[in-house]
Amino acid sequence: MRLVASNKMFSGWQNQYEHESDCLSCTMQFSVYLPPAAENQDVPVLYWLSGLTCTDLNFVTKAGAQRVAAELGMAIVCPDTSPRGEGVPDDPEGGWDFGLGAGFYLNATQAPYQVNYQMYDYIVSELFELVGSELPINNKLASISGHSMGGHGALTIALKNDQQYHSVSAFAPIAAPTQCGWGEKAFTNYLGSDRDAWQQYDASLLLKHAENKLPMLIDQGLEDDFLTEQLKPLIFLEFADLASYPMEYREQAGYDHSFFFIASFIEDHLRFHSRVLKHV
Amino acid sequence: MRLVASNKMFSGWQNQYEHESDCLSCTMQFSVYLPPAAENQDVPVLYWLSGLTCTDLNFVTKAGAQRVAAELGMAIVCPDTSPRGEGVPDDPEGGWDFGLGAGFYLNATQAPYQVNYQMYDYIVSELFELVGSELPINNKLASISGHSMGGHGALTIALKNDQQYHSVSAFAPIAAPTQCGWGEKAFTNYLGSDRDAWQQYDASLLLKHAENKLPMLIDQGLEDDFLTEQLKPLIFLEFADLASYPMEYREQAGYDHSFFFIASFIEDHLRFHSRVLKHV
Repeated sequence: MRLVASNKMFSGWQNQYEHESDCLSCTMQFSVYLPPAAENQDVPVLYWLSGLTCTDLNFVTKAGAQRVAAELGMAIVCPDTSPRGEGVPDDPEGGWDFGLGAGFYLNATQAPYQVNYQMYDYIVSELFELVGSELPINNKLASISGHSMGGHGALTIALKNDQQYHSVSAFAPIAAPTQCGWGEKAFTNYLGSDRDAWQQYDASLLLKHAENKLPMLIDQGLEDDFLTEQLKPLIFLEFADLASYPMEYREQAGYDHSFFFIASFIEDHLRFHSRVLKHV
Repeated sequence: MRLVASNKMFSGWQNQYEHESDCLSCTMQFSVYLPPAAENQDVPVLYWLSGLTCTDLNFVTKAGAQRVAAELGMAIVCPDTSPRGEGVPDDPEGGWDFGLGAGFYLNATQAPYQVNYQMYDYIVSELFELVGSELPINNKLASISGHSMGGHGALTIALKNDQQYHSVSAFAPIAAPTQCGWGEKAFTNYLGSDRDAWQQYDASLLLKHAENKLPMLIDQGLEDDFLTEQLKPLIFLEFADLASYPMEYREQAGYDHSFFFIASFIEDHLRFHSRVLKHV
């Protein structure tokens, strides 16, 4: 793991690293904000998963999260959104909703994607262990959040690993991916046409299996262009109701799907996770 | 003037507009953050001038200024950094430090640049009057700030218009442009080889003519790669001392020239300007 960029920010450090990923069979970059408290101790950590077309840098440059992370003494780890590099297969049709920048945080089983597209294992195991061992990060105090495709990633990963993460939040998550175009395209290509294999990556369907109910916060902009066709939070809310899974779901009038929306509420999410992690 | 983008942010609106500029003889875009208070009244305004290679959007997406602007009830107007469009002459050598994205906030006198490169008049008059008449902005309560080339712009424009702006601040300004490579290249091309014509655009040299001494705040990162070769704040400080011009000059250890530096201290600058404007 090599440091490729480092900028002082709010008395801490916004760093970017590069490493050879065994799990993804390619070179990967990721970004980490280390708050000033990390100079003296291992700090709690939020894993942030970005949405379609993003790299590790979009959240770093646009969300304005570092100010509050510095205050709370919390690291933020931002992975890329897919494997990268010349040998990694992309959408043959050139779409932006599948392939490069669109790994959907799952383990692909279908050729030619199964070689590189193992983003679920990368987030839950390889990257998690790497930053825990190489950086002043205390993985026993970990939470997870994300936006859109990354909101889907955060919810599914937290629901399947409810001992590893202590709280989960999302901005405008793809909340029922087996029932929207983005999910159907990605899951068909990565997982094949058998819909039974899709269920393990659908946050709505995972809710009923949840044993340890994690604190959960979701923000959804009501002027989000993808709300009814792709995100479908109402399905998720129905399943949560059936499963008696408590959560805070906030509808934000006037807000859209952009980073301007994320920036407006990221402080609430960081404080939400920090409160939970302080009581672990 | 046409609205081309509008995103809700911190209960206000981050807008982008387009208009035909008489003064620059081209179509221009600019961005404005309107805080929630602007729904009911004309609000105080900060003009922000960006640095080399930027458009109106860099500050909007990267600085994280809107949160505090919303709280303080202050609009932020972000112009582009040069005239734009196919007919606008650029650096014939393809450099990024002169021509498109590098208007240096002056009125060019030399062919072929004098037709479009009238950024000084654009900022001080045309754009100022446009937003004052079309938007809920109170130009009687105006301040100005900027970064690098935009710091040079903010300082020179404020020093030459000390009744129009009530306070001025800068991040890592090009503080003595007649004595650095960036300034010499730009001024030679825009203003000709007669160095006497350059003096009106050198903040250090303007200090001695200052009658109305404005509140002034400058932040400079000590790990800024351009500090000694291009920015030269010590020359500016010497001239300020000679002119008995009071200012707050802060050296920030560990910080570089990036937007991570700006984001770390923009809140201080907004509160500085707001305090001044509250007492006008």
